Amino acid sequence: MKIDVNSDMGEGFGVYKVCDDEKLMEVVSSANIACGFHAGDPEMMARMVRLAKQNGVGVGAHPGLADRLGFGRREIPVDAEEMEQQVLYQLGALSAIARAQDVALSHISFHAAMGNMINRDAALAERIMKKIKAVDPNLIVFSMPDMLIEKAALDCGLKVLNLFLADRAYDVKGQLVPRKLPNSVIKEETKVRARVRQFLEKGTVTTIEGEIIPVRARSILVHSDTPGSLELARTVRSEVEACGGSVVPAREVVV
Amino acid sequence: MKIDVNSDMGEGFGVYKVCDDEKLMEVVSSANIACGFHAGDPEMMARMVRLAKQNGVGVGAHPGLADRLGFGRREIPVDAEEMEQQVLYQLGALSAIARAQDVALSHISFHAAMGNMINRDAALAERIMKKIKAVDPNLIVFSMPDMLIEKAALDCGLKVLNLFLADRAYDVKGQLVPRKLPNSVIKEETKVRARVRQFLEKGTVTTIEGEIIPVRARSILVHSDTPGSLELARTVRSEVEACGGSVVPAREVVV
Amino acid sequence: MKIDVNSDMGEGFGVYKVCDDEKLMEVVSSANIACGFHAGDPEMMARMVRLAKQNGVGVGAHPGLADRLGFGRREIPVDAEEMEQQVLYQLGALSAIARAQDVALSHISFHAAMGNMINRDAALAERIMKKIKAVDPNLIVFSMPDMLIEKAALDCGLKVLNLFLADRAYDVKGQLVPRKLPNSVIKEETKVRARVRQFLEKGTVTTIEGEIIPVRARSILVHSDTPGSLELARTVRSEVEACGGSVVPAREVVV
Amino acid sequence: MKIDVNSDMGEGFGVYKVCDDEKLMEVVSSANIACGFHAGDPEMMARMVRLAKQNGVGVGAHPGLADRLGFGRREIPVDAEEMEQQVLYQLGALSAIARAQDVALSHISFHAAMGNMINRDAALAERIMKKIKAVDPNLIVFSMPDMLIEKAALDCGLKVLNLFLADRAYDVKGQLVPRKLPNSVIKEETKVRARVRQFLEKGTVTTIEGEIIPVRARSILVHSDTPGSLELARTVRSEVEACGGSVVPAREVVV
Repeated sequence: MKIDVNSDMGEGFGVYKVCDDEKLMEVVSSANIACGFHAGDPEMMARMVRLAKQNGVGVGAHPGLADRLGFGRREIPVDAEEMEQQVLYQLGALSAIARAQDVALSHISFHAAMGNMINRDAALAERIMKKIKAVDPNLIVFSMPDMLIEKAALDCGLKVLNLFLADRAYDVKGQLVPRKLPNSVIKEETKVRARVRQFLEKGTVTTIEGEIIPVRARSILVHSDTPGSLELARTVRSEVEACGGSVVPAREVVV
Repeated sequence: MKIDVNSDMGEGFGVYKVCDDEKLMEVVSSANIACGFHAGDPEMMARMVRLAKQNGVGVGAHPGLADRLGFGRREIPVDAEEMEQQVLYQLGALSAIARAQDVALSHISFHAAMGNMINRDAALAERIMKKIKAVDPNLIVFSMPDMLIEKAALDCGLKVLNLFLADRAYDVKGQLVPRKLPNSVIKEETKVRARVRQFLEKGTVTTIEGEIIPVRARSILVHSDTPGSLELARTVRSEVEACGGSVVPAREVVV
Repeated sequence: MKIDVNSDMGEGFGVYKVCDDEKLMEVVSSANIACGFHAGDPEMMARMVRLAKQNGVGVGAHPGLADRLGFGRREIPVDAEEMEQQVLYQLGALSAIARAQDVALSHISFHAAMGNMINRDAALAERIMKKIKAVDPNLIVFSMPDMLIEKAALDCGLKVLNLFLADRAYDVKGQLVPRKLPNSVIKEETKVRARVRQFLEKGTVTTIEGEIIPVRARSILVHSDTPGSLELARTVRSEVEACGGSVVPAREVVV
Repeated sequence: MKIDVNSDMGEGFGVYKVCDDEKLMEVVSSANIACGFHAGDPEMMARMVRLAKQNGVGVGAHPGLADRLGFGRREIPVDAEEMEQQVLYQLGALSAIARAQDVALSHISFHAAMGNMINRDAALAERIMKKIKAVDPNLIVFSMPDMLIEKAALDCGLKVLNLFLADRAYDVKGQLVPRKLPNSVIKEETKVRARVRQFLEKGTVTTIEGEIIPVRARSILVHSDTPGSLELARTVRSEVEACGGSVVPAREVVV
């Protein structure tokens, strides 16, 4: 069983850091690298690519809205043309930085508000995915299952890798329980391990209501900007391996 | 005689403009498009690419230092690694925006302080040119003659197109007379025409001291951010054509 | 009859300009100076204060959302605390720059999306006005009539100066007809003059539907970022004077 | 013996933090609050003021160059007018945010490159200090001893509080040993305590060469952006108190 473990990386800026990217890069198999709009800067992006290459980690673009103050979490009104060009700009920027290190991008994963806005607008999702394909048809699109991004990517012939979150509660509709609600974040290591195991062995998750629902995913996302993210990533990886799975980059999962 | 006429384009930001890009794009044959650091934004870059494509104009990257307030004219201390990654970032960003419109970049032209800093440091020039070549070996590097950028580009196998400024006085060393000095900028249309003609027919320029020196160049640069730039570009183009030259993009000049 | 004529000033950034601030400053009696968030920078703000002082023009703060790319026209989600601090920050910044030139601020006028967002939220309007009063109880608040900003300002004891737009169509409810609709902007000088005269002599405006409604205002706002703003301002001023009115700063209108 | 302990605070941005401002604010007596140029944002500034007020800590402005990417550490070429206006802008911004919480600023402390550039140019230092005085004559200027900032501040009638660094090696000229040199930073708690005690009791410091030189200072600066800054601040404070000193805000030290 091949499983990808991915995390958002390089989400600092200048002197600022949000996690120990060096250590985390030793644990994940795919890195979604911030591209300088919501976070990241050219030098940091190059450093992330270097670390990823050293660790055999797949390099993906993690574009966000041009909103450093809000860390890309605020839905800033942009029309479809602006959104398209902001995605292409960031994708191209990381792509050139990676190519100069002889690294080809493997995937793209949308950050926060940018992802939410695309996921609410089928025409926008279609537009963006077509342009991504025009720029690099080999990119794998990371997506939660059953979202417009997934649909639009598949419709235009891009490959998709679906995500599972081991440390977040799901509701009976398969949606993540919002962080602000109680019990939305699972912190105990044994519980996280149990969820990873159930996901791998049964392809299911037990919802916050106690129901068991199927989860269609082949990559586990660890948010790097929560405290303890490094430990969480290590827990997830070791449990995948304890279950007999192997942690490999997206490109080896999606074939 | 094939001659390129180029100008920096898209050097506005958001609502701001520095010239009438739409009209200027009808006159030049190569556009150096600002890449979002000293000027420009993703939507504006895409608009410039669209205009260039419509007008058969070659599309080039015009990277600058990350300094919107200073319009890229201030020499901000950055080390070689930062400079390299800032160049690659901007080059890649424009490249993806262009590729989504089925346009390949033809050239790169450095803006203001970024160009000056690279031109003062042979090791930096070499480093940057090698990385540009790694990202896109077909790019033509725009350069004033006899600068470190030209040398480093040629040394690593990149093609170079040299620039001539029809509206700026040269000194006897072949250097531009700084703008702040008297008579550094030639404004009279007849004088500009005479200089274009002399450049085309004799390959020379008469310096501010009155000497005639050779000028090695195949492209005429019109600065878009000076008042009257559109008229200047029209003058230059019409004089080139009056001399029997044809104004063509960089790629048709450098073969 | 004392009437103020005001305009937004210093809405450029670095090398960028949106109008001829020098000339416009000779025509208006109050300047709403951009404070560095949607437009403006410290040096430009200081230059505007200097020009205003030279011309006997009242100096006011023109705060906007922190959104240079969108020129403060996009409604960016900020909570009440952020909005309050963004207002205070900008107000204080201009205030110190002015004080160093021995100029006291006379007024505050909110820009675009910031004004719209405050005008939709009574609690927010109240909160902001109270804090403005805490910082400077002598500030006059500029407002279109019958808006929440006006109400909140008056409720907490701040003085208000109401605005009239001579070049914009009103509807029967006294609202401005949106710019994108036909006939929303009045461009003919004779019509603008007639509207200024009617406003001054009758205190009314003829709506786009042809009805005559009262207009409660003592200051005429000229948008500086529309083409022909300088000519419009001159037209407005000369018509006010032709009607026997005198154009004076806000502080002489509101007593 | 009254001694101030100060630290730079609120040097994060948006989601980013550089230290535990909440805890550090319980230890220091003066806070130099970043003003949004090299670090900080309006909401963060307001939070710092609130924390300072709750803890009886003196509030000062900590202006820096407009350089978030470089954290204000890069010497960006600005002329005297720009530098002046950047100082006034930031000072005013914090001042208004503080005033809205009924807090008056007690001091100003220049950040990194801004301070270094002012300290190298007597005319600039004089110009800046005069304008600071014009804006708020009660501000205390923080300065290392024998710098141009100190001289200019005293010359124009501003009060000065001199700084001592307990964790940094001094050379025989009384200058700080640059961080990149060996033994420039003193990390052992016992050594820091010994230096604080010697400074308090003898008014001297033992240089890196082993000589004892006088130190003229009444405030101890703890850099918040170095690892262990909170522990260092606690060590410094407890040693001051162990020596019989009392840790009080700048305004109680400079009378």
